[in-house]
Amino acid sequence: MHKLYIVGMGPGAAEYLTPAAHKAVADSEELIGYGLYLDLLGELTTGKRRHELPLGAEVERAQLALERAAAGITTALVSSGDAGIFAMATLVFELLDKQPRPQWREVEIEVVPGVSAMQVAAARAGAPLGHDFCAISLSNLLTPWETIETRITAAGQGDFVVAFYNPRSQRRDWQLERARDILLEYRPAETPVIIGRNLSRADEALGYTQLGALSRDDVDMLSLVIIGNRETRQFGRWAYTPRGYEKHLETP
Amino acid sequence: MHKLYIVGMGPGAAEYLTPAAHKAVADSEELIGYGLYLDLLGELTTGKRRHELPLGAEVERAQLALERAAAGITTALVSSGDAGIFAMATLVFELLDKQPRPQWREVEIEVVPGVSAMQVAAARAGAPLGHDFCAISLSNLLTPWETIETRITAAGQGDFVVAFYNPRSQRRDWQLERARDILLEYRPAETPVIIGRNLSRADEALGYTQLGALSRDDVDMLSLVIIGNRETRQFGRWAYTPRGYEKHLETP
Repeated sequence: MHKLYIVGMGPGAAEYLTPAAHKAVADSEELIGYGLYLDLLGELTTGKRRHELPLGAEVERAQLALERAAAGITTALVSSGDAGIFAMATLVFELLDKQPRPQWREVEIEVVPGVSAMQVAAARAGAPLGHDFCAISLSNLLTPWETIETRITAAGQGDFVVAFYNPRSQRRDWQLERARDILLEYRPAETPVIIGRNLSRADEALGYTQLGALSRDDVDMLSLVIIGNRETRQFGRWAYTPRGYEKHLETP
Repeated sequence: MHKLYIVGMGPGAAEYLTPAAHKAVADSEELIGYGLYLDLLGELTTGKRRHELPLGAEVERAQLALERAAAGITTALVSSGDAGIFAMATLVFELLDKQPRPQWREVEIEVVPGVSAMQVAAARAGAPLGHDFCAISLSNLLTPWETIETRITAAGQGDFVVAFYNPRSQRRDWQLERARDILLEYRPAETPVIIGRNLSRADEALGYTQLGALSRDDVDMLSLVIIGNRETRQFGRWAYTPRGYEKHLETP
């Protein structure tokens, strides 16, 4: 058995950890991931060897996962959210494709999807992702900013609801406001914006603002930002993006 | 207690039903949803009253959910996948916003997110959603086709990976090929395409094709289609969209 699970553990709370993810972690002898997220798994990690590599060591983390599994150790590479959305899964496959090592051939991989941050933010706020949407990472560490700008512009032109991942980090602080300015060319300043932080964890916070007022001071590296499209409405504590049922509603 | 859960049950298999969704269904006295999906919940629905309204009766389904909860009956409105992604949640909030009834004020709503079809398709295929992506419904029953075309064009211009929901129905069969033709203006005919059907259910199927060869005959109303972007690669049974780690890989 040379098994590698690539696991999305969801946003953090046990209530959003799927049974498949629970089983993958429980089955594994060794876990690879950030300490912050492994800690959220609580007793499930007891007795398992934990490999906690620092931020920035993503390639090493993916290689280590493949090596441990190739050595016959059932291993889980754990990401928060969904392992396939702005997380570790794609790097494992890139290594397998571009820099395969003979011993990796034996590894059986299972990717376990999970609830991503935008889904929890949307659920807490109502249904802002209720119509066509896109997900964009604002981190330009790996992607040229020009590419990111092209995508934000396209999201504006297509009037997509937008979920921004990685809106800010310790070293990056201007990207969100540049993104805001691009979207303001296509949708009004009053467009509802939802900001989630640490959703489903002890210090969960959900806030609203409007696109025209969105500031870098509203976010940090644990934030997830959803920008409504031109149809998104907010009322009271709820926001939603209609799908077009209006013509089917009764005449009052 | 006037509680309404709006629940995403995931793609179907119990292993992807979150504990939060399990608890919401277990707590509820009455369930509202399609029979197909309620059946997949198995024994969890035993002893609970089921309201199965026909396809097309979405407004009635959302109204019924609010009415039952307002009557003091703990109720779950159940969608497959994520309740907030091309599903029922947004319609409940639209009714609350535009056609509120006095008795609905008492209803406490909790939206429970779930694993959406694109996430399972992506996990089965590797990591095709590994970089910026968008989700577009190809159903023009509620959304004018012109709006959908604008979004597909924007997805092409922004080079987003695209997840197409509702690629075909009994009455709609041409939309997928029109979408394909638009995307072919922006990405090559060899672009990897993943087609998932009934993922996580007994007759699960996952297939690959290329954008230039994608045909309406490849899909039905239970299919989910993921179109790679210009970077997406397929090798063997896997497909992935790199995030830009290439420059960090070792020189072989």
